[in-house]
Amino acid sequence: MSLSLTIKLHLASSSSSHLTHHHHAKKVTTFETCCYNAKIRPKPIYSTNPLIIPACRVRPRVQCGAMVKSSLIEPDGGALVDLVVPESVRGAKIIEAETLPKVQLTRIDLEWVHVVGEGWASPLRGFMREDEYLQSLHFNSLRVKDGSFVNMSLPIVLAIDDETKGRIGSSSHVALLGPDGDFVAILRSVEIYKHNKEERIARTWGTTAPGLPYVEEVITRAGNWLIGGDLEVLKPIKYNDGLDDYRLSPKQLRDEFDKREADAVFAFQLRNPVHNGHALLMNDTRKRLLEMGYKNPILLLHPLGGFTKVDDVPLDVRMEQHSKVLEDGVLDPETTIVAIFPSPMHYAGPTEVQWHAKARINAGANFYIVGRDPAGMGHPTEKRDLYDPDHGKKVLSMAPGLEKLNILPFRVAAYDTKVNKMAFFDPTRAKDFLFISGTKMRAFARSGENPPEGFMCPSGWNVLVKYYESLQAEEPSEQPVLST
Amino acid sequence: MSLSLTIKLHLASSSSSHLTHHHHAKKVTTFETCCYNAKIRPKPIYSTNPLIIPACRVRPRVQCGAMVKSSLIEPDGGALVDLVVPESVRGAKIIEAETLPKVQLTRIDLEWVHVVGEGWASPLRGFMREDEYLQSLHFNSLRVKDGSFVNMSLPIVLAIDDETKGRIGSSSHVALLGPDGDFVAILRSVEIYKHNKEERIARTWGTTAPGLPYVEEVITRAGNWLIGGDLEVLKPIKYNDGLDDYRLSPKQLRDEFDKREADAVFAFQLRNPVHNGHALLMNDTRKRLLEMGYKNPILLLHPLGGFTKVDDVPLDVRMEQHSKVLEDGVLDPETTIVAIFPSPMHYAGPTEVQWHAKARINAGANFYIVGRDPAGMGHPTEKRDLYDPDHGKKVLSMAPGLEKLNILPFRVAAYDTKVNKMAFFDPTRAKDFLFISGTKMRAFARSGENPPEGFMCPSGWNVLVKYYESLQAEEPSEQPVLST
Repeated sequence: MSLSLTIKLHLASSSSSHLTHHHHAKKVTTFETCCYNAKIRPKPIYSTNPLIIPACRVRPRVQCGAMVKSSLIEPDGGALVDLVVPESVRGAKIIEAETLPKVQLTRIDLEWVHVVGEGWASPLRGFMREDEYLQSLHFNSLRVKDGSFVNMSLPIVLAIDDETKGRIGSSSHVALLGPDGDFVAILRSVEIYKHNKEERIARTWGTTAPGLPYVEEVITRAGNWLIGGDLEVLKPIKYNDGLDDYRLSPKQLRDEFDKREADAVFAFQLRNPVHNGHALLMNDTRKRLLEMGYKNPILLLHPLGGFTKVDDVPLDVRMEQHSKVLEDGVLDPETTIVAIFPSPMHYAGPTEVQWHAKARINAGANFYIVGRDPAGMGHPTEKRDLYDPDHGKKVLSMAPGLEKLNILPFRVAAYDTKVNKMAFFDPTRAKDFLFISGTKMRAFARSGENPPEGFMCPSGWNVLVKYYESLQAEEPSEQPVLST
Repeated sequence: MSLSLTIKLHLASSSSSHLTHHHHAKKVTTFETCCYNAKIRPKPIYSTNPLIIPACRVRPRVQCGAMVKSSLIEPDGGALVDLVVPESVRGAKIIEAETLPKVQLTRIDLEWVHVVGEGWASPLRGFMREDEYLQSLHFNSLRVKDGSFVNMSLPIVLAIDDETKGRIGSSSHVALLGPDGDFVAILRSVEIYKHNKEERIARTWGTTAPGLPYVEEVITRAGNWLIGGDLEVLKPIKYNDGLDDYRLSPKQLRDEFDKREADAVFAFQLRNPVHNGHALLMNDTRKRLLEMGYKNPILLLHPLGGFTKVDDVPLDVRMEQHSKVLEDGVLDPETTIVAIFPSPMHYAGPTEVQWHAKARINAGANFYIVGRDPAGMGHPTEKRDLYDPDHGKKVLSMAPGLEKLNILPFRVAAYDTKVNKMAFFDPTRAKDFLFISGTKMRAFARSGENPPEGFMCPSGWNVLVKYYESLQAEEPSEQPVLST
């Protein structure tokens, strides 16, 4: 399958000169990259970006090139954390790392190094020590020095086994090795404490039923100890899957919003293809923001790029699907930024949606769209949703540390059979509407069946159909899934 | 078995005139009482209180009888909640209650009406609605109007079944019936929402393993709906077990501390007999407070009086044991107040210890003693503690809403075989110390074996031995438990 990505990525070339003012700047073109090869599809699906529009062309600016106003929302803790060491000291750090006890990272551990290192979890500066872990587990928030709280609903922790703990002994610092054996980071002033998996799972997911994807992929097989400490990331994390240029850091996103003179940024977190119901919602949000008096609201279409469960659509396919949605004009490329959120997915519902929102604060979004059952899934052993579909937005609206973020609850969109398009659900004529869940959408695509006309732009739908065809070609024994 | 209680209860007779200034005053002698009979031992074990010392005798006061300073710590939310309706309107409320849909309370539901009605959970004014429930479950705290947080770690909820929900229909208010069928309270402006037991259990206990006492007693058999609303308690909750006079409300305790001119109140929560290690700790705390410059620190010895698991020592036996400890002078009656905390026990470790501390803020204590593994127990299905024994005090020290409370962590006391008494553990001569857990203590008493001399005052120990003898007389088939 040959995929080509044509998302309009608005990284103006002028941004690199802007970045060089900062010694932490990540000059992607010259940095050695820390890579692991994505198993799923090795060939680069992205090389050039033909649709880049220089920022100044998007909207005529009064003082194009001059300093723009600072960002719209303060990062948690007041300053964005950036833990990538300056290039000038990298050599010395690697020499030091060679002398330290080594801890091997998994692919998902590396995603967390990426997330924390770029400041998505600001003010967190590394893997959690026990104090932070307990606050996250019990309060979904961390107390900062001035006595206020920042949100922190997921434990961001690094597990080690007994043998590794023994090798670390009483060392204060350890070196973290990437999946390819390269030095990724140093973890400073470490603290090792017990990894009570049952309690972590119960308090994070509200269930201990077998079959939770992150639990099975990460926690069950992890060691019985957690190691916390301050991270020094030795080089920017790269995946060499052709999508690295879409992995904009919170700093890059903030710079981009400033450059575009956004006066509102609304973030849309997703891990599924964009259908016309999503688009309706995003376009409606923009309209509402304009009605509220904002002049230049920018949409951050922000697909999650880390670990997802096996039956979710892979990132590269989703990115191509998103690009078709923009090409087709379903979303407006001039007021949309597409970038990848590097976090792995927990499927922890109301607990996780807080993380999704908090990370977008750090990326400069001051509005967050939340829908039905965010970060939810079916209960792994019972025939019901794992979470009450309304709890996500309720918890989000009350969460400590998210006060400064404007939460925009979804209106429910569904397929209106009277006009053959996605529309906001009208309860007075409920029978006219079809609800097409993500599961049902995937089942349609898997079986090669077309969804109702107007559900998704045809070019985007075609990306999904081709993906499922390729799966069936690779795995001939797989049964076609019925579109129930 | 004949028990007599001789705890020095310092409720000065002058306090009743003080109380009558408040229309919410609970004049126990004239109120109709809402009673249910404790199953365990029906006969009254307390009738007179021979050792009452008028407050003014305890410590000479400059202005005895004049207004004393207000309490040492503000109740959560700024004002103590008192939901018992004035006697003057009670008749009308009962007439109204007769017209409302009725909800039958269990014994433990009634304990919660007691707890909430007297303001232990201030600023909570009833059983939680869904917003409060979700905040408690996810954040262990509630946001109050000024944007700050009060601690609230346990969901205080009332469950109803499908049939009751159906009967309530769209009524705004319901009447709550006590175990004897009497009208206990009206619940106003009710909200009914789903009772997801699995999620409630996982997030509260950090496990869903079978065998959690509160879960088995309360939650498993409860209905699939929760009903929240504002409580109006129709009359003070009484149990008629001879111990009601020890059930001082937060207001009564605050008045008592003021009357005694306490300049520090340190609370000791317990659900076990007091041994000399506890006493050492409490006496040492007093000494430390004196060294800190406090002139009149008062100990609130505050046994939990609600639901406890079946192998815990019952409240009446514990109260008699505590009285012996005071009679013997192991604790100083002149600087100690013994009262009963009416809450049921969850055995939810770090989550529950926050509730235990928060309720004592409302009762006027500004110091809280916390030990190893507070509110903990063995894992119900694995051979280990359910909670990390250090997590309780760590979580307590970081909990939102408890900032104003001074947390006093335990020093570990153990039996020092060199001097034959309980002493602070000295790790440099660890082998000289014996650790005698509550479980081991109960096993000694059950088997009639004496603990080492100096572990507990003999008269207090005798109370326990008699209790276990009476159990064996009642249940001859019970095997004596080995003192392992």
